[in-house]
Amino acid sequence: VKNIAVLTSGGDAPGMNAAIRAIVRTGNYFQLNVYGVMYGYRGLINGEIMKMDSRSVANIIQRGGTILKTARCKEFFGYEGRQRAYEQLKKYQIDGLIVIGGDGTFKGAFTFSKEFDIPCMGLPGTIDKDIDGTDYTIGFDTAVNTAVRAIDKIRDTAEAHDRLFIVEVMGRDAGYIALHSGIATGAEHVLLPEQPTRIQDIIDALQANERRKKLVNIIVVAEGDQSGGANEVARVIKEQLPHFDTRVCILGHIQRGGAPTCLDRILASRMGYAAVLALMEGKHHNCMVGVVNNQIQFTPLENAVKASPRIDPEWFQMIRILAS
Amino acid sequence: VKNIAVLTSGGDAPGMNAAIRAIVRTGNYFQLNVYGVMYGYRGLINGEIMKMDSRSVANIIQRGGTILKTARCKEFFGYEGRQRAYEQLKKYQIDGLIVIGGDGTFKGAFTFSKEFDIPCMGLPGTIDKDIDGTDYTIGFDTAVNTAVRAIDKIRDTAEAHDRLFIVEVMGRDAGYIALHSGIATGAEHVLLPEQPTRIQDIIDALQANERRKKLVNIIVVAEGDQSGGANEVARVIKEQLPHFDTRVCILGHIQRGGAPTCLDRILASRMGYAAVLALMEGKHHNCMVGVVNNQIQFTPLENAVKASPRIDPEWFQMIRILAS
Amino acid sequence: VKNIAVLTSGGDAPGMNAAIRAIVRTGNYFQLNVYGVMYGYRGLINGEIMKMDSRSVANIIQRGGTILKTARCKEFFGYEGRQRAYEQLKKYQIDGLIVIGGDGTFKGAFTFSKEFDIPCMGLPGTIDKDIDGTDYTIGFDTAVNTAVRAIDKIRDTAEAHDRLFIVEVMGRDAGYIALHSGIATGAEHVLLPEQPTRIQDIIDALQANERRKKLVNIIVVAEGDQSGGANEVARVIKEQLPHFDTRVCILGHIQRGGAPTCLDRILASRMGYAAVLALMEGKHHNCMVGVVNNQIQFTPLENAVKASPRIDPEWFQMIRILAS
Amino acid sequence: VKNIAVLTSGGDAPGMNAAIRAIVRTGNYFQLNVYGVMYGYRGLINGEIMKMDSRSVANIIQRGGTILKTARCKEFFGYEGRQRAYEQLKKYQIDGLIVIGGDGTFKGAFTFSKEFDIPCMGLPGTIDKDIDGTDYTIGFDTAVNTAVRAIDKIRDTAEAHDRLFIVEVMGRDAGYIALHSGIATGAEHVLLPEQPTRIQDIIDALQANERRKKLVNIIVVAEGDQSGGANEVARVIKEQLPHFDTRVCILGHIQRGGAPTCLDRILASRMGYAAVLALMEGKHHNCMVGVVNNQIQFTPLENAVKASPRIDPEWFQMIRILAS
Repeated sequence: VKNIAVLTSGGDAPGMNAAIRAIVRTGNYFQLNVYGVMYGYRGLINGEIMKMDSRSVANIIQRGGTILKTARCKEFFGYEGRQRAYEQLKKYQIDGLIVIGGDGTFKGAFTFSKEFDIPCMGLPGTIDKDIDGTDYTIGFDTAVNTAVRAIDKIRDTAEAHDRLFIVEVMGRDAGYIALHSGIATGAEHVLLPEQPTRIQDIIDALQANERRKKLVNIIVVAEGDQSGGANEVARVIKEQLPHFDTRVCILGHIQRGGAPTCLDRILASRMGYAAVLALMEGKHHNCMVGVVNNQIQFTPLENAVKASPRIDPEWFQMIRILAS
Repeated sequence: VKNIAVLTSGGDAPGMNAAIRAIVRTGNYFQLNVYGVMYGYRGLINGEIMKMDSRSVANIIQRGGTILKTARCKEFFGYEGRQRAYEQLKKYQIDGLIVIGGDGTFKGAFTFSKEFDIPCMGLPGTIDKDIDGTDYTIGFDTAVNTAVRAIDKIRDTAEAHDRLFIVEVMGRDAGYIALHSGIATGAEHVLLPEQPTRIQDIIDALQANERRKKLVNIIVVAEGDQSGGANEVARVIKEQLPHFDTRVCILGHIQRGGAPTCLDRILASRMGYAAVLALMEGKHHNCMVGVVNNQIQFTPLENAVKASPRIDPEWFQMIRILAS
Repeated sequence: VKNIAVLTSGGDAPGMNAAIRAIVRTGNYFQLNVYGVMYGYRGLINGEIMKMDSRSVANIIQRGGTILKTARCKEFFGYEGRQRAYEQLKKYQIDGLIVIGGDGTFKGAFTFSKEFDIPCMGLPGTIDKDIDGTDYTIGFDTAVNTAVRAIDKIRDTAEAHDRLFIVEVMGRDAGYIALHSGIATGAEHVLLPEQPTRIQDIIDALQANERRKKLVNIIVVAEGDQSGGANEVARVIKEQLPHFDTRVCILGHIQRGGAPTCLDRILASRMGYAAVLALMEGKHHNCMVGVVNNQIQFTPLENAVKASPRIDPEWFQMIRILAS
Repeated sequence: VKNIAVLTSGGDAPGMNAAIRAIVRTGNYFQLNVYGVMYGYRGLINGEIMKMDSRSVANIIQRGGTILKTARCKEFFGYEGRQRAYEQLKKYQIDGLIVIGGDGTFKGAFTFSKEFDIPCMGLPGTIDKDIDGTDYTIGFDTAVNTAVRAIDKIRDTAEAHDRLFIVEVMGRDAGYIALHSGIATGAEHVLLPEQPTRIQDIIDALQANERRKKLVNIIVVAEGDQSGGANEVARVIKEQLPHFDTRVCILGHIQRGGAPTCLDRILASRMGYAAVLALMEGKHHNCMVGVVNNQIQFTPLENAVKASPRIDPEWFQMIRILAS
C-alpha cells in the first residue's frame, strides 16, 4: 500500500475530523500519500480528490462536522457508479481506502472492495452507536453530552414552572442517546425503539406523581420510538391529562455538531491510527475498526451492520427507581 | 419599610435567582425582613410565603430557573384575588413588594399598588428584552448566548452536508434574540416580528447563493415572525426550491435555562440591590428598575410596557453585507 | 440490612452527587432508611448524620461537588476514632455503610469493617482514575473534558502568537488526565509520572519543529511527573531555548468542579444502585463496586488500591505520530 | 480609498476574527480590495500580506484567536521600521489601514498615519476593557464569562471542602475582569489595581465569617493588583490564618481563548463594519471606533489611551453586601 484515500459518508458525527487527522498524519509518518475525498462516495465518483498533508489537518481535532464534507450517494449503489469510482482511484494510484460512516457506508465499501479488489477499512462514525463490532461509535459521546446539557437547561425551566417536558432526541433505529441522556438527566421516563412503549403506564405514573405533589417530569423519547415521537406522545398525554402543563422540545440537529468530547477524539484518533496500520500490514483488510473492551478489534465489513438491541433490561428498572 | 417580599412571575429567565439573592442579602444587610413568595401572584394569594435569610440564597447566583418558582395567575387580574393577596401581606406585615417578570407582571403590580397602597418595585425578568425603560432585561444575554452556541453546532452539520437550516428562536413579540443570534452566527437571513418578511426575497437570495456555489445557508426566524415560524418558512422554501437540502430546528425551551452569563448575573444583582434601596429610600416607589446607558434608571410601572420596535435599520443592511 | 449510611471522603469529584442520589433512591425504593454523613469520616465520628429521602437528592444529579461535603480525617486512622464512629452507627442502628472516595477511603473502610463487623461498600470517586478493579472512576471523564476544553482555549491563543505552552493538569500519581487530554488536544508532548521524562528529547523535538516552521507547541504535564511540574519544565526549556515564546498554565482546581459528563453520571448512578443491591443481597460485602468492560464488578476493598501503571506503550507512539 | 489592509496586534482577544470577517466582507461589498497582514506590524514591515475575499473569512466568526496572527513588534516603534511598512503598503497600493489591538497598537498607528499620510482606523481588541472612548472592547465579555465559568467550578470544590480559594484573573492595569467575575460569582472579596488593597481588612472579614461558620470564601485578585497577585495574597493569609484550608488558582491564558460570546461577536462585527465605512466616507480617519451607550462613536487615535479608573465606588459596597 502506497497511496491511500479517506472519505466521510452518511450523517456527519463529531470526531470525524479527529479521525481524518489521525489517518493523514499516520499515513504521512509511514511515507504513504494520503488523499482526501470530498462529499463521500459522490466525490469519489466525480473525482473530487485532493492530496493532504500534516498541515491540511492542523487544528481540526476539536472541530465538529467534517472538513471532507459528506453526502448520501445513490450512484454508488449501482455497479456503474462504483466502476467510475474505481477509475478515479486508479488515476491517483490509490491502493487503499478508508471510509468513515455507518452501516450503509460499510455495505458500499464491502461491495466495492469485492468487485475491484481495493482494500477498504471502515471507521464507525455515527452518533447512534448501533453498529455491531464496537462498543462506541465516533460521535455518540459528544451527541449524548449535548443532549444532556440541553435537557439540564430544560429541567431548569421545568422546575420553575412545575411542567412536564417531552424531549425528543435523535436515534431512528437505536435508543442509546435517549437511554443514556435519560439516565444522566434523571428523566422520569425513557421511550426507545428497542422496547414497546405503553403510554398508559406513563400516564398512570404521572398521575401517581401528581398525587405526591411531584409535578416536574421529563420524558425522553427517541425519534424512532414506535409511539411516533415527542409530538405524538404529547398529544396523547394532553388528551388524558389536560390539566398538566405539558411542553415539547425536539433537540434536533444540535446533537450532530459542536466540539467533540475527549472520548470521541481519542476514539477517533485510535481508530484512524489503527486503520492505517491495518492497511499497511495487510492483516485486517476489509474490516471495520472497532473498540471492544477498550481494545482495538476488527470486524469484517459485511458483519459491521446495525446492531441488534443489546440494552440491559436492568437499566430500565434502574431508571424507574432513580427517578422515584 | 420593614418587611419586604419578593416574587417571580411569568416566564422564567436565567438570572432571576441572582436577583432574588441580591434582594434578600441587601434587605438583610439593612435590617429588613425579607419574605419569598412561591409561584408568583398565585402564591401571594394562597399565602405560600416564607422568610428568607442569607443562607436561603447561598450558591444560587449561578443557577438557571427561579428557586421561588413562577406561575401565571388569572385570579390576580380580578379585584378579589388582589384583595386576598393584600390580606396575606398584612398577615406578615409586609410593607414593600418586589416583583420580577415582564410587562404583564408589572401591570398587576401597578394596579395592586394603587388599590392597596403597597409600594411595589418591578425588575424586568424576561428573555425577550422588549420592555421600555431598560436597555437589557434579566435573561436576554443568557438566552441569546444559548441560541448562538446551538446555532454554531447547527452550522457544523450544515457545513458538512451543504444544507439550508431554518432555525426558530424564541421571541413572540420581539425579535431581539433572532437579531442578535443571527448576526453573531453569521446567519444569511433573520426574520423578525418587527419587520415584514418577504420570503420571495429570501428565495431569490438563496438562488443567487446557489449560483455562486454557496449552498450552506442559515435562516434565523423569531417564533413571532408573521411568516408563521420556521416550519412555515421551510414549507414555502421547499415548495419553490425542492432540490435544496432543507432542515428545520426549533430551539425551544433550552433558551430559558442554564447558568446565567456574567452580564445577566451583574444586571440582576444591581437591579435587586437598587430595588431594595429604592423601597427603603421611598423615592422611586412603584417603578421598574432599569439599566439605561449602564446607569440605574427608574420608570413608573405603568410605563414599563412592551417596548415598541427600536431596531436600527442599519443592522439589517449589516446582516446582508456580512453574510455575503 | 435495614438502615444504611453514605459518605464522601477525600478529594471531591464530579459525579459524587449522582452516586448519592442513586444510593438514597435505591435504598428508599427497597424500604431501607438511608442516612447521609457530612464531611466524610470526620462527620461519622462527630455524628453529623441526617436522614435522607427522595427529595433530599432532587435536582442534584447535574451538580459538581458533593452535597455531603468531604474532608480528610486523621482520627479515623486510629482505633479510637473508628470506635467513636461505630458508636454513632449503633446510635442510628445503621447496619451498612457506603463510602465514596479513593484508595485511602477504602483502606479506612476495610479496617473499620473488620473491626466492627459493619458491611462496607466502596465507590471509586476520584478524578485520577487510578484504582485497581475498575476501568473508570467517578469524576475522571468530567475532569479530563474540563482539561480538554481549557487546552482548546489555550491553543487558540498559542496559535495567534506562535507560542509554546506548558500546561499542567492534575494527577499526582497517575497520568491519565494528562495522557487523555494530551491526545485529545493534539499536544506535541505529554509528561506522565508513569514514564521517565527526558526533557532533552523534548528540546530536540522543539528545535526540529522550529526548523520546519512549526512554532506552536503544547506540552501537557501531569502534576506528579518527575520533572517537577510545568514551572520546572518551563525553566529548563527557557534556559536552552530562550528565543521561544514560552508560557505556563496550571489548570488547577477547575478540573474538580462543574456539571458531570453523561458518562460520569451514568457510572455513578450504576455504581450507587449496585452498591445498595449488594448490601441487601449480602453477596459482595466489603467490596468496591467497579465497572470493568462495561459490567459491574466487585473487588475486595483491600485490593482496591492505587493501580500500578497500565498505560499501553503504543499510545506514546501514537501521540508522537499524530502531533507530527 | 480603494485598497485597504487589516491587521491584529498585541495580545489576542476573542472576537478579533469576527472583526476581520466584517472588514473583509464590508470592503468587498463596496468594491474595495482587502488585504490581510499577518503578525501585526511585524508582517507589515516584512510584507506578509495577502489578498482576502469572502471565502477567506468563512466560518471564522465563532473562532477564538486571530487568523491573521499577532505579534509584538519593536521595529515599528522606530522610524525606519515604519518606513519599511509604508513601502509595503505602497507596493500593494493600500490606501487605508485598520488595526485591531490595544492602546500600544493605536499609538503606533497614530504616528504612522501622521508620518505617511495613511488613514488608519483602530478597533479596540483587548480583554482588559480599559480603553478610553468605548464602553466595551472586543474580547472582554468572552474573557469575563470564561473566568466566571471557571470560578463556578472552583466554587463547587470549595463548597465540598469548606475551603478558601484565591483566584487570580487577568488584568495588569485594569480590574474589570476581576470586578465583573467577582460580582458574578458571588466572591467575598475582589482585589483590583484601581483601588488600594488592605489585606488586613480581608483577614478580619475572613475571621468574622469563620465565627458565623462560613468557611467557604472566594477572593478574586486581578494580576495587576498591588498586593502582588494571588500567590502573595495567599502567603500573607496563610501566615495569619494557618488553620484555614487555603488554595490558589491562577486562571491564566484560558481567558484569552474560546469561542467569543454573542456580545463580542456583534461588537466586533459592528466595529469592523463601521471602520470600513469611515475609511470610505473619509469623515473619521485616524480614529478608534468605539461603542458608547450602544452607539458607534469615534475617538481620535491619540486619545484612545488606557482609560483612567472609572469604577463606581458603589459597586464595592454592593460586593460586600451581596456576599454577606
